Amino acid sequence: MAKESIGIGLIGLGIVGGQVAKVLLEKADILAEQAGCPCVIRKIKVLSADPDRPLAREIPAGLLTTDTDEFFAEPGIDIVVEAIGGENPALDYLKRAISRGQHTVTSNKEVIAKHGTELHALARKQGVGLRYGGSVGGGIPLIAPFKYDLVANRITSICAIINGTTNYILTRMEREGIDFPSALKSAQELGYAEANPANDIEGIDAHYKLAIMASLAFQADVRPGKIYHEGISRLDSRDFRCARELGFTIKLLAIAKLINNSIEVRVHPAFVPEDSLLAKVDGVHNAILVEGDLVGKVLFYGEGAGALATSSAVTADVVSSAQDILHGVSDRAVRKSASAISIKPMAEIETRYYLRMNVADQSGVLAQISKVLGDNQISISAVIQNEADITAQVSEIMITTHPAHEKAIQQALGELAKLGVVKEINNFIRVESD
Amino acid sequence: MAKESIGIGLIGLGIVGGQVAKVLLEKADILAEQAGCPCVIRKIKVLSADPDRPLAREIPAGLLTTDTDEFFAEPGIDIVVEAIGGENPALDYLKRAISRGQHTVTSNKEVIAKHGTELHALARKQGVGLRYGGSVGGGIPLIAPFKYDLVANRITSICAIINGTTNYILTRMEREGIDFPSALKSAQELGYAEANPANDIEGIDAHYKLAIMASLAFQADVRPGKIYHEGISRLDSRDFRCARELGFTIKLLAIAKLINNSIEVRVHPAFVPEDSLLAKVDGVHNAILVEGDLVGKVLFYGEGAGALATSSAVTADVVSSAQDILHGVSDRAVRKSASAISIKPMAEIETRYYLRMNVADQSGVLAQISKVLGDNQISISAVIQNEADITAQVSEIMITTHPAHEKAIQQALGELAKLGVVKEINNFIRVESD
Repeated sequence: MAKESIGIGLIGLGIVGGQVAKVLLEKADILAEQAGCPCVIRKIKVLSADPDRPLAREIPAGLLTTDTDEFFAEPGIDIVVEAIGGENPALDYLKRAISRGQHTVTSNKEVIAKHGTELHALARKQGVGLRYGGSVGGGIPLIAPFKYDLVANRITSICAIINGTTNYILTRMEREGIDFPSALKSAQELGYAEANPANDIEGIDAHYKLAIMASLAFQADVRPGKIYHEGISRLDSRDFRCARELGFTIKLLAIAKLINNSIEVRVHPAFVPEDSLLAKVDGVHNAILVEGDLVGKVLFYGEGAGALATSSAVTADVVSSAQDILHGVSDRAVRKSASAISIKPMAEIETRYYLRMNVADQSGVLAQISKVLGDNQISISAVIQNEADITAQVSEIMITTHPAHEKAIQQALGELAKLGVVKEINNFIRVESD
Repeated sequence: MAKESIGIGLIGLGIVGGQVAKVLLEKADILAEQAGCPCVIRKIKVLSADPDRPLAREIPAGLLTTDTDEFFAEPGIDIVVEAIGGENPALDYLKRAISRGQHTVTSNKEVIAKHGTELHALARKQGVGLRYGGSVGGGIPLIAPFKYDLVANRITSICAIINGTTNYILTRMEREGIDFPSALKSAQELGYAEANPANDIEGIDAHYKLAIMASLAFQADVRPGKIYHEGISRLDSRDFRCARELGFTIKLLAIAKLINNSIEVRVHPAFVPEDSLLAKVDGVHNAILVEGDLVGKVLFYGEGAGALATSSAVTADVVSSAQDILHGVSDRAVRKSASAISIKPMAEIETRYYLRMNVADQSGVLAQISKVLGDNQISISAVIQNEADITAQVSEIMITTHPAHEKAIQQALGELAKLGVVKEINNFIRVESD
């Protein structure tokens, strides 16, 4: 096909959009060489055509529009890059672009997690690409590995640290022994956590990303609504001390496992062995451990967020889309039609557990607790009992279990709470190995 | 294109070839779904048609041939998979296949390292693909990341552990305090090292792999002959003890760095900080740390070898080739024509160094050594001097330096060897951070 250039329409000129524009302009030569012809920005949809905007010199005002219809009426846009984030109007824009036969690139995890299957179907129907390499793990190569390198594998599990904000907070708590509110405050002051941090600390961001990865890995339609998620705000500095004593650290894990044609998908804090690779993933970094039947375990690690890293993935997707257009093919290895796969209810998962509780400082307490656990087919792996607080006549007991069913643990927790000798169940955290 | 199936010709039915055949047969459905149509083995070139061969039931004897001409005369072979290893006749087979317009897949690091540029040019001319995902890092996704995800990046460095055998030996030496010969013997007994281990322990295998990665990363023609390489046989258990005392461990690193449009490429043992991710890469695992201007540092980790992991990469390449054929395109993101890039002579590199030497147990020794180093513009970072061996009147001194030029260090080593107080220079090892 003799096409002299590929036209790009960019929606959003914020932190990510601005950086993408910068890369498209500054690296025009490299990208043209990789793509096969120049990739030229033809129009940018913005909220306001601020004359003091970044790249004001490089991007003439004539390229900007605040009018969505004008943006979509612009001829010669082959690829639409959506960089505004959030569910709406991003979803509408993507649908509109695909319906017009435009290839699409986004790093919008919420839209892809919630509407990926629908958008994929629409893109397939229109014969265009839908690419979202920046939606998980910033610039860490993940989508191409799933689409190309690992295609011969039956993926059996994903175990990932995919939220940099929470990992930063947990790293601070672990290293400095500080409590959650202090670590959160510090993360906010440094710009690693938002003023309203719920999206990160409650595991919402991570569960979107897990939905995307699990859908890719298992070629299935894994909606975020089906993913159990639990945040990190319940964690106490004492949990970290106890984890260390037992040879673990605590991470917010996103886990997807294929077991007997059924998958479990869950996001929650977990004890991970301190000598595991995931335990070494510090600060705002991300790491994704993938297991396949041929490849064994492979791990991908890097900066999980940030405009620069995300622009690496977005512009790579632009190049791939441009190659497709020049070769007259649509995105080749798009997610196949979702196969029927059942998602296991959380109650049915099996893992190990850690419990921390305050108990009466008297004899026979451990016997009573052990009996409750034993009655629920839960076997104890390790116990740590701390020196009693003499005045309060309370001591703290920490227990880790062998693998047990979530349902049994929940039942046991209910029964333990009713024991007279158990003053308070402070926390329970799942224990995972990688 | 209405093609009902893609024909595969396999050269070699040994450990890798046999496993590839097994995957192509056992996973035929999955591969067909990914590729777009069935990928069918049409012919297998073997050295002898052993009736007791593996897969004797699954692969009818009629598919086998020991005759190269018969293999290449077979009609309907779209993709030739070379799985015999070694430089020749593998190179001839690949050239012959490409010249016939067949897409090619190989995991042969030696051929690609030495002849990749020539083969790429031939493949480009013939409009066919040349894929070699399994040539570096077993099944660890590496090629697609460079070809797709990281294309917008200027890659500035690669720092990798890419030889599992040596990493296994170094892990044993570190953990158990044993010496090199014992660790090698143990690796040989366990099948991790070959009877003639030179290819691994002398860094030859690693330098082939580095040539491939550096060529990809820098879009340049980096021939293995230009790569400095040094093996691990000089390492002593005392070096590990000293490394530990200073907060390091020792790894065989493959390093490629782009500095001012010139690259340095080298394979040698190195001190790496014990809290770095590369220090945590144990046993036969591989890890490749890549730094790009947009993406920052990303790391890829996994099993670096083995028939199963390699078959993951080889069959993925078969699927990608099949997709290309069905879409009527050739390998899209092949290495661009090699740009002019100079390779820095080893004497000009700059890094930190560790020296270990036996010196006379008398006063003023350190002053003499420091003077030699200082005269060569080498500044000392740390010194450890062990208790003297009273009978021999010798003590051991270990020094780490601040960054210095290789040339200066080599000059200083020559001068130190001539000092009367220096009895023996036991080792010198480069010190790298990641």
